[in-house]
Amino acid sequence: MSGILSLWNETPAKKAIISYVNATTNPESTDFVPETERIAILDNDGTMWVEKPVYVQVFFVIDRLKQLAEADPALLDQPHFKAAATGDLTYFFRLDPHAGGDVKLLMQMVFDSHAGMSQDDFMLMAKEFLETAKHPRFGMLYKDLTYKPMVELVHYLGDSGFKVYLASGGGMSFMRVISEEIYNIPRERVIGSNISFETRMTDEGPVIFRRRGLVDPIDDGAGKPVNIELHIGRKPILAAGNSDGDLHMLWLAQKSGFRSLSLLLRHDDAKREYAYDEGSEKTLQMAKERGWVVVSMKDDWKTVF
Amino acid sequence: MSGILSLWNETPAKKAIISYVNATTNPESTDFVPETERIAILDNDGTMWVEKPVYVQVFFVIDRLKQLAEADPALLDQPHFKAAATGDLTYFFRLDPHAGGDVKLLMQMVFDSHAGMSQDDFMLMAKEFLETAKHPRFGMLYKDLTYKPMVELVHYLGDSGFKVYLASGGGMSFMRVISEEIYNIPRERVIGSNISFETRMTDEGPVIFRRRGLVDPIDDGAGKPVNIELHIGRKPILAAGNSDGDLHMLWLAQKSGFRSLSLLLRHDDAKREYAYDEGSEKTLQMAKERGWVVVSMKDDWKTVF
Repeated sequence: MSGILSLWNETPAKKAIISYVNATTNPESTDFVPETERIAILDNDGTMWVEKPVYVQVFFVIDRLKQLAEADPALLDQPHFKAAATGDLTYFFRLDPHAGGDVKLLMQMVFDSHAGMSQDDFMLMAKEFLETAKHPRFGMLYKDLTYKPMVELVHYLGDSGFKVYLASGGGMSFMRVISEEIYNIPRERVIGSNISFETRMTDEGPVIFRRRGLVDPIDDGAGKPVNIELHIGRKPILAAGNSDGDLHMLWLAQKSGFRSLSLLLRHDDAKREYAYDEGSEKTLQMAKERGWVVVSMKDDWKTVF
Repeated sequence: MSGILSLWNETPAKKAIISYVNATTNPESTDFVPETERIAILDNDGTMWVEKPVYVQVFFVIDRLKQLAEADPALLDQPHFKAAATGDLTYFFRLDPHAGGDVKLLMQMVFDSHAGMSQDDFMLMAKEFLETAKHPRFGMLYKDLTYKPMVELVHYLGDSGFKVYLASGGGMSFMRVISEEIYNIPRERVIGSNISFETRMTDEGPVIFRRRGLVDPIDDGAGKPVNIELHIGRKPILAAGNSDGDLHMLWLAQKSGFRSLSLLLRHDDAKREYAYDEGSEKTLQMAKERGWVVVSMKDDWKTVF
């Protein structure tokens, strides 16, 4: 057993995970789950990597809004272009659902900022951002600010015959640029919110473009089970999240018909990361009622990044 | 080499497939493709199983329309309910895109007939149909009317490190009920047209329901690259289809950046299956221009079912 989840402290959370994986993967166990049904789904922002002071993708959007406003100063009449151009980050922090913002409005702005370009161009642009942009507090590349105990969990689950998916409230394509490198999760297992695509037929064949407009529902709250059905067609037996946007998904795991494990990561470590319960109150309450395992960043993890 | 594609005759089509797989999987080859990029996508109706006299799912819909009309005779005012109730199959055959019908109108009818129920109930209903319903000409279960040389191709590609997907113009969930059993393609690798889902929160947790209304675009023609981007995020290097609804996808494979193989199955075997080019004229022409491999059911396959 030594070596399994080595970045986790010897606390009840780690024991609950290992005991769950043992029970569901041992063919002799009454809780055995066939590999086909071993679906694990993890939220991304705040569950797999840092989401403060605001979602990573919002920093990518701020860069873009700034560029667009430089090319066309008339855009400065709109508050988000102005905020980006003048470096007023608090404008964007207030849009964060954890700060009471409306996630749908936020995602509308996120997607509109990269509408109209080809999907190939978008992927290149996102890759360049993720290869270079650094977090304002930690001074590290965003892509290095993954929670290493969670990355270790992804590997442990994969080694145990689980198919591990990401279900992000943020943009699906944005995370696909980097998910293989930082999480070992292939692109096709990344679910997320989406701009709508269209195929334009050119002399050189079909090209996929990003259209203005959100695909409904966004991948948050009640939208997560919808997108899970669309992408997988099975309910997860293991789900992990950190906010009220994950409540439906965490409960969905308990409807899989198999022994399930729902993990709720609590940000209670202001020193190594952040401490906040805002936006997670309902789910913390539900975790008590429904027996979900609350993971304390402070107590359960040896390291964060 | 013996044993590979044993259900295929020793014709240029078989040689082209084997030579392609050898070149893309041999690390010493200049055409080598890393496993992550080895995406193969196959159309379903008419490429993997029989689609005449009309798509299998339409027979499922006819059963449903009949039941609904028995429960509520007022529905008989609508022509498709009346046709189902009176056994007028030609009404439905005329909706077939190969007979000049509008695929979007057809899929609207298909999805509306099972709207309003839970997704779990739908899956059970589809399973029951596929376990019992038989083809009017061949007298066999539809699920046994898969093209065995194509099923053999799926296994060969899987054994060669390809991820094999289905991209059906028909309903995604309908095929997911049976794809693992008949093709060895897991549910999450089945792409298709979709009704829209919604999550309803009940006292027993989240339940996914099927809403009235098609998800745009349907998975046909220009919609196929869109849904491929949504579900996979990579272009296929191998694609197979049989109609003009597959034209965009077959061309998309040539834009993958790797050596690609586009296969077009031609129905030219009235004795063992059917013979028809209607609805495939553009793609047959394009195959000549762009070097796609046309597979002749009559000449290239030792057996069909």
